[in-house]
Amino acid sequence: MNTLDIITKKRNGEELSFDEIAFLVNGYTEGSIPDYQMSAFLMAVYFRGMNHDETVALTQIMRDSGDVIDLGPIDGIKVDKHSTGGVGDKTTLIVAPIAAACGVPIAKMSGRGLGFTGGTVDKLESIPGYRTSLDKDEFMRQVNETGIAVIGQTGHITPADKKIYALRDVTATVENLSLITSSIMSKKLAAGSDAIVLDVKCGSGAFMKNEKDAGELASLMVEIGKANGKRTVAVITDMNQPLGNAVGNSLEVIEAIETLKGNGPDDITKLSIKLAAVMIYAGGKAGSIEEGEVKAAEAIKNGAALAKLRDLIGAQGGCVNVIDDYSVMPSTSNHYNVYASSDGYIKSMDAMRIGVASQHTGAGRATKEDTIDLGAGIYLNKKTGDFVKKGDIIAQVHTDKDNYSDIIAEIEDAICITNDRNDSPELIKRIYT
Amino acid sequence: MNTLDIITKKRNGEELSFDEIAFLVNGYTEGSIPDYQMSAFLMAVYFRGMNHDETVALTQIMRDSGDVIDLGPIDGIKVDKHSTGGVGDKTTLIVAPIAAACGVPIAKMSGRGLGFTGGTVDKLESIPGYRTSLDKDEFMRQVNETGIAVIGQTGHITPADKKIYALRDVTATVENLSLITSSIMSKKLAAGSDAIVLDVKCGSGAFMKNEKDAGELASLMVEIGKANGKRTVAVITDMNQPLGNAVGNSLEVIEAIETLKGNGPDDITKLSIKLAAVMIYAGGKAGSIEEGEVKAAEAIKNGAALAKLRDLIGAQGGCVNVIDDYSVMPSTSNHYNVYASSDGYIKSMDAMRIGVASQHTGAGRATKEDTIDLGAGIYLNKKTGDFVKKGDIIAQVHTDKDNYSDIIAEIEDAICITNDRNDSPELIKRIYT
Repeated sequence: MNTLDIITKKRNGEELSFDEIAFLVNGYTEGSIPDYQMSAFLMAVYFRGMNHDETVALTQIMRDSGDVIDLGPIDGIKVDKHSTGGVGDKTTLIVAPIAAACGVPIAKMSGRGLGFTGGTVDKLESIPGYRTSLDKDEFMRQVNETGIAVIGQTGHITPADKKIYALRDVTATVENLSLITSSIMSKKLAAGSDAIVLDVKCGSGAFMKNEKDAGELASLMVEIGKANGKRTVAVITDMNQPLGNAVGNSLEVIEAIETLKGNGPDDITKLSIKLAAVMIYAGGKAGSIEEGEVKAAEAIKNGAALAKLRDLIGAQGGCVNVIDDYSVMPSTSNHYNVYASSDGYIKSMDAMRIGVASQHTGAGRATKEDTIDLGAGIYLNKKTGDFVKKGDIIAQVHTDKDNYSDIIAEIEDAICITNDRNDSPELIKRIYT
Repeated sequence: MNTLDIITKKRNGEELSFDEIAFLVNGYTEGSIPDYQMSAFLMAVYFRGMNHDETVALTQIMRDSGDVIDLGPIDGIKVDKHSTGGVGDKTTLIVAPIAAACGVPIAKMSGRGLGFTGGTVDKLESIPGYRTSLDKDEFMRQVNETGIAVIGQTGHITPADKKIYALRDVTATVENLSLITSSIMSKKLAAGSDAIVLDVKCGSGAFMKNEKDAGELASLMVEIGKANGKRTVAVITDMNQPLGNAVGNSLEVIEAIETLKGNGPDDITKLSIKLAAVMIYAGGKAGSIEEGEVKAAEAIKNGAALAKLRDLIGAQGGCVNVIDDYSVMPSTSNHYNVYASSDGYIKSMDAMRIGVASQHTGAGRATKEDTIDLGAGIYLNKKTGDFVKKGDIIAQVHTDKDNYSDIIAEIEDAICITNDRNDSPELIKRIYT
């Protein structure tokens, strides 16, 4: 087999065999195929696409490029959850305890990641003492004993995807459905759960800007999950404005706890119940998503989900007092108000621009080497559709950086106030099962 | 300016500015832009193409990436000639002396190159003593004194093209008209002549398999040449069968001398007169191509062209006896016959396959490091359209390699004999001025 022939075949629109894709991906991962051939191949895929069989093959080859976790020692149907990423998305911190409280074993590995805020692992690390790395046996035992564990990505998972993704990022070859799908699904398959729930974000703050693209991605991911024998459900949800009111690490943990106490913002509460319901259904603990919603809402109401979060924090060495006393959480020394510039209704709050502003507060990383300020972030006092009077506080900037006035200006630019009443965007757009 | 943005722009089908192309090409040449970004860009160009302005820009940027030769010290209109490459193509050895004999100053730099046989420089080096490297002053002086010099590529010409071409070769991004055109034309423009004659080969042994593709390339090259203020003419010529009877280095030099003596094969004689005529016309020494043809034919007939070849060889230190005594030329110790397998007419002689067989005799290089056997090659006793009887000698294999029986089989496979009379392919298909 010959690399140039494989690139040429894809360039010419021909279908590649499993063996050809494996030759390329494994050769690249091992270093026998150079990055300049891989990037040419990826650009050819951008233009020619990959069909179902090719996408399944690529996903499986990347899955098998490293460790594939065996969650066999954990009883029950393990359900994993993945979000394609958005601003203010703290749902894992909420839905994992809810689903666990409803009997679904949660053995979750989460990421850090670049972007607007840290990833779930960073957010959890803002809880004093919380250990995000457990060894394999501790991890399995904790899930069997408490029903839930959430740790950082462990071991040597999908090195092929890691290497290919880094290359796609600098060669304008990220935006292809098969490449996105195989990247996400290879990691989810390697993580070993029995079922996968995907939250596909859609809107100005998401990778997928419109519902059509998000729908194509959702249905392809479901198709690829099923082709690998996993129950897979995808939910398309809005990401035109940030999710909830808090954007940051510590700030989002507090909002997640509030949500489990029943005091969460409407949008994050509604979305969390929906996603938890899908997880409960996928984990066989409800006969339908609707039944799952009833159970999820009940788990918030009766305190079972909050108790499960307390168990999780305690089991992983975190300070459980956080549940009742947010002053133990990191915070910045300073915060600054953003005021409404006029009377009117908030027409839009551009999620992407608020995310960028959040990164500038110190809440997110621009490069892998950056450290993040766990206390930093943005709190939105108002959301899309709200009426404001000139001078009302719309948002608060939590930062110890000197450039806070630039951040305030960024947030002002991201918000549009009009005289006309607006509806807030529809939160849950479609479910693909 | 940002490399990723430029790749993305081209990927999305947008037009790039001169400055953007310069940023990319110069950055890649200097090493500040990595090859994996360049190859992704090249694949995007494969799919999206480049328009006229982009192609002109790329050509000029590559031209200016190294030395641009100033042929000012040479009197008259200097005419360069380039062939896109074929099997048995020794026309430079013939047309350069003809054009010089007709008063066109020939200051030619030629290549070695990989492939079926060596390049013009290798062929000239099969003449004992011939020096293919002259310094700049010697080169200029020789052209002014004798009207002709043919040397190897000198100095630091188009390093950007060299580096980009090597990358295209291993990333399936060779086959794009703008990239091919800018590669050829940047070198021709850097070589400093006033006018450029392009022999665009077309057929099974050429890069361009059909007349439509060859025509697009020819017209684009003429367009780009003119956009740079050079009189440019392209001639599309047949490469379905090897040109002439000889394929090799020494063998081709002998055939070139025979042609200048008036004893050449019909096809090579006809093509050489046409190309020389175009050069004479482009060099202002004839009012039309037709008038150029009359002059070129006369220069063969009256011995002026042969005398000019003798001057060239002598001026560059070569053994001038070669003109009358071919035994001074390198030859192999062995040669082997290829016989006609049946009675009939030769329907086709696949140029590409005969070229590959020629490389196997030792006449061509597979990698840059290979040395070539200047005496090796293939002599075709018959050509397409000829009638043969079973057992007639169709070809002779000149090689000292042990695998001569494989080479014989390759040649047999390349030749098709049928009962029906065939016309030999039309040699000169179209001229673009």
